[in-house]
Amino acid sequence: MDFAAEMSRHAARVEAGIERLLPSGETRPARLHAAMRYAMQAGGKRLRPVLVLAAAELFPSAAEERADPLAAAVAIECLHTYSLIHDDLPCMDNDDLRRGRPTAHRAFDEATALLAGDALLTHAFALLATGYAAQPALSQALVAVLADAAGSRRLIGGQMEDLLAEKKTDATREELEFIHLNKTAAMIEAALVLGAHCGDATKHEIDLLTQAGRNLGLAFQITDDVLDATADSATLGKTAGKDAKAGKTTFVRLHGLEDSRRLAIEHTDAAIADLRKLPGEAPFLVALAENMGRRSK
Amino acid sequence: MDFAAEMSRHAARVEAGIERLLPSGETRPARLHAAMRYAMQAGGKRLRPVLVLAAAELFPSAAEERADPLAAAVAIECLHTYSLIHDDLPCMDNDDLRRGRPTAHRAFDEATALLAGDALLTHAFALLATGYAAQPALSQALVAVLADAAGSRRLIGGQMEDLLAEKKTDATREELEFIHLNKTAAMIEAALVLGAHCGDATKHEIDLLTQAGRNLGLAFQITDDVLDATADSATLGKTAGKDAKAGKTTFVRLHGLEDSRRLAIEHTDAAIADLRKLPGEAPFLVALAENMGRRSK
Repeated sequence: MDFAAEMSRHAARVEAGIERLLPSGETRPARLHAAMRYAMQAGGKRLRPVLVLAAAELFPSAAEERADPLAAAVAIECLHTYSLIHDDLPCMDNDDLRRGRPTAHRAFDEATALLAGDALLTHAFALLATGYAAQPALSQALVAVLADAAGSRRLIGGQMEDLLAEKKTDATREELEFIHLNKTAAMIEAALVLGAHCGDATKHEIDLLTQAGRNLGLAFQITDDVLDATADSATLGKTAGKDAKAGKTTFVRLHGLEDSRRLAIEHTDAAIADLRKLPGEAPFLVALAENMGRRSK
Repeated sequence: MDFAAEMSRHAARVEAGIERLLPSGETRPARLHAAMRYAMQAGGKRLRPVLVLAAAELFPSAAEERADPLAAAVAIECLHTYSLIHDDLPCMDNDDLRRGRPTAHRAFDEATALLAGDALLTHAFALLATGYAAQPALSQALVAVLADAAGSRRLIGGQMEDLLAEKKTDATREELEFIHLNKTAAMIEAALVLGAHCGDATKHEIDLLTQAGRNLGLAFQITDDVLDATADSATLGKTAGKDAKAGKTTFVRLHGLEDSRRLAIEHTDAAIADLRKLPGEAPFLVALAENMGRRSK
């Protein structure tokens, strides 16, 4: 398996899907739709939608029954992008740069960014309803998975606790794990599970993917913290050293740099062990997990 | 039909549904869930969820097949409340009062209000997936209706054009109608259609309800503009005269007070004419439309 080629193949499908499944930038009101597309076209790794497509390919079924996972892939990227737009707002992280470009509220204005985020969140669910019109049970399962992962107990709950943790200097390891499990891992888990639902995965396989997603998410977030503490802004494409400057509680601050690196490797290994139990031993997902564990940006 | 008694019956179901179908205020993170409940418990007319329940009752079907419209009713109130929370934020209307109480960002803080709005929007879709677990085709239809009405072309599009119109002094009648059709009428239409889907309404009946919702929504918004120009803050439970002060384009400004009142009556009458074509002539909905047309707050 050529990892880079597989990654490009999935990413190209995602880019084409985004282009096709978002309203055009000329749709009225044009400013809103331009802002939605601006935020979605910021590039980035497309990690979550690629996970949807790759997970779906693990479970081939009869061609005529098989659901196209692309709408679900674009939906999770809409969801992720909304969370970034709102997270960057002045009342949240107040970030000016995202993937090397002005954040949505800097490129447009705060109100437009707020509404573009709301619109992408709503569009994610529209895609899960209209993209699986012929498979209502699948559509319902996808909505349930995404709404749970993105909801007040998980993604948004993690963001809320992250904000609360910033305001105190004594956040605990348990609080930090809650934040990462929900702010980051929930959507990685959801991506793999959405893909699996589009295939004919069993309950056991979905449990394995959930567990792998949890570990991948934690490894990803710990690596983020390590990079924020060690890399520079140009490499990252976003403001580096921001966590320490903001006095933010991170894995690096609570566990130290060495232990953080070790923890990232442990979670990566645990994810890989579960992925190898899946049909065909999931070589692309295993390679992706290894790649994420040693990334430098 | 005793209108007040029917209204109380529906509203009591809605209040009980909100209590039961929202996560408790102690759910972690408690601050987020407390803010969600604070915003949802602001009282108000519960117009949209009452419309869901009343529309569903027009189409009785065999008791064992009939879907309970309550989850859809609570979902649309979550959706409406999210839109109010975000609309009140400093970067939008910057409002301190809502239904006589501090707005969410005044009672909590801006970030918490932003996230509570995001969470209520997401919870609306969670309710449509989990509340109709045994009826996947219905669940899918409800998600499609709500996501469309709340999306970038309708509710959010209307809010965007409303913001843009505030920044110029020459908004046209056509622009104002776009705003009201989408910012207000879309969710009134959706409420009636969600209810109809929970019953066994025909396509023609859904079309009648859509058209009635459109006219009701316009009548409602025009009446809002008239009241803002003529009533006082204590009666309204929110800051009165705000539109004129902000130089906002309203029906009253473009059409004058007398023509605005006439237009509100025309749209109300048109809605009533369509409602009377529904099974049993929809006496409660007709009375509600009449009531909305002559409300004083």
